[in-house]
Amino acid sequence: MTFSLTILGSNSAIPTLTRNPSAHLLNVNGRLFLIDCAEGTQLQIRKFHVHFQRIQRIFISHLHGDHFFGLIGLLNSLHLLGRKEKLHLYGPPLLKEIINLQLEASQTTLNFPLVFYPLSFSGYEMIYEDEKVTVHSFPLLHSVPTCGFIFREKKLERKIRKDVLSEVKIPVTEMQNVKRGRDYIDEEGKVFKNEDITLDPPSPRSYAYCSDTAYTEAILPFIRQCDLLYHETTFMQNMADSAKEKQHSTTIEAATLAKKANVKKLLIGHFSARYDDLQPLLEEAQSVFPETILAEDGMTLNI
Amino acid sequence: MTFSLTILGSNSAIPTLTRNPSAHLLNVNGRLFLIDCAEGTQLQIRKFHVHFQRIQRIFISHLHGDHFFGLIGLLNSLHLLGRKEKLHLYGPPLLKEIINLQLEASQTTLNFPLVFYPLSFSGYEMIYEDEKVTVHSFPLLHSVPTCGFIFREKKLERKIRKDVLSEVKIPVTEMQNVKRGRDYIDEEGKVFKNEDITLDPPSPRSYAYCSDTAYTEAILPFIRQCDLLYHETTFMQNMADSAKEKQHSTTIEAATLAKKANVKKLLIGHFSARYDDLQPLLEEAQSVFPETILAEDGMTLNI
Repeated sequence: MTFSLTILGSNSAIPTLTRNPSAHLLNVNGRLFLIDCAEGTQLQIRKFHVHFQRIQRIFISHLHGDHFFGLIGLLNSLHLLGRKEKLHLYGPPLLKEIINLQLEASQTTLNFPLVFYPLSFSGYEMIYEDEKVTVHSFPLLHSVPTCGFIFREKKLERKIRKDVLSEVKIPVTEMQNVKRGRDYIDEEGKVFKNEDITLDPPSPRSYAYCSDTAYTEAILPFIRQCDLLYHETTFMQNMADSAKEKQHSTTIEAATLAKKANVKKLLIGHFSARYDDLQPLLEEAQSVFPETILAEDGMTLNI
Repeated sequence: MTFSLTILGSNSAIPTLTRNPSAHLLNVNGRLFLIDCAEGTQLQIRKFHVHFQRIQRIFISHLHGDHFFGLIGLLNSLHLLGRKEKLHLYGPPLLKEIINLQLEASQTTLNFPLVFYPLSFSGYEMIYEDEKVTVHSFPLLHSVPTCGFIFREKKLERKIRKDVLSEVKIPVTEMQNVKRGRDYIDEEGKVFKNEDITLDPPSPRSYAYCSDTAYTEAILPFIRQCDLLYHETTFMQNMADSAKEKQHSTTIEAATLAKKANVKKLLIGHFSARYDDLQPLLEEAQSVFPETILAEDGMTLNI
């Protein structure tokens, strides 16, 4: 099953010609989840050859412009391009009002249903679930109400061993039970123990997105041991005072959190426009957490 | 005096990788007037090396997204980049509410005064005047209230002939009067007729911007004989029905209007994203009005 992440924007508030502000795209088995949507995101989607209309759910972490100013333009383009399929939007309550006011101003009635789910910011909450994946939100520590999100694959089914299948005739009606861990008993009463005829499934994967936040260990329980943690790293450590004042994080802070949460990999982004060369940020983070990588517009990671 | 136009976006509603939606920048003697501001305009400004903070006045023709979705992002970036100077904004009344709601959502108080002037759409009106230029708005014919704008240089002063200046000692205090057309009488009572000692000034220049509109001759009195007429040309003539239905214009319609208004030059833009090659649009317009040119992102025209 595909579980991959494409970075549509890696910069903080001010866009540059090489780095757009925040937007991530998670591909879960062909269904696309867009996470934040800065101005210009629709062009990034076009540039990186993403199929626009496959976006099913959009998650907006907070109402600073570099995380949502591109949403209204994206909705408008989906409308003009003839979308009919329902679109699900998760965000702060005021977001709905902002969208409605702009649609009203342009006398636009979207051709597709837009279903809005207000985020509560009050704690760790499941905001979406289907047969493949769950999505939880949790509060971050920022100057306006802000959510992080964690996307988790559900536990996958056990795999029936191919060599067993050629010898034992398991009826189709029993297959599902075996995949779920039950033993198989044939017509003559012979018992095949589940552990002898199946293989462990791959571990479910997880992706945590921490958009804008000061350093906070309160989020550790939610992101622990995730496969990929995206954590904002607006500043290098020598600007820790600015980070604190603006409720953002530094390289060392993001890496410390990744280490304490025992995650597999750390992805840093939301870089201040003052940094042309990001190598020093990477090295600083890696000094604490070696498994760190830099977000880069257009990159795709298979989690 | 500089009187030049830079195209920041030449496309209609949906941005493409080579053509952004509407935004024009008029440079009047170093002061910048931004006309419409689609999503991504701030990046176009950066790409084409325009000095952000020199923008003094912004004119928004109407509230379709491809004409204003980039405004809030531009204001936000001007704020983050430390602007202190007043910014003047002209637009439909609801625009103020849209901006305020988004500033409120992000708990942002702009560092600079934003002075808002609501457009009335009721007729031909002077909305700005200084010692160099006037700006008038006039209603267009579109599906939501929409304004065109005409920017006119004021009549320039006469030029005192250099050969005269070396022979006749005109006191500095009299210079201004002579430039305004008065005769000069020296201390001995000798009369120098103004027409003998001055040259005609260059004709004042004018630029008319007609953003989104169906064909309407009602605007002829406002745009007559202007130096450069920008008129939207969303469609080719074979899509006249679509143009009519969506209250947009075709090549032939824009060119016909330019001809009837006896303008010096016609600039066409707001092209539908369906057209990759714009040459056929240009040729169709030129068949009626030869002095037609195509808008192209990044081009600068000295009017």
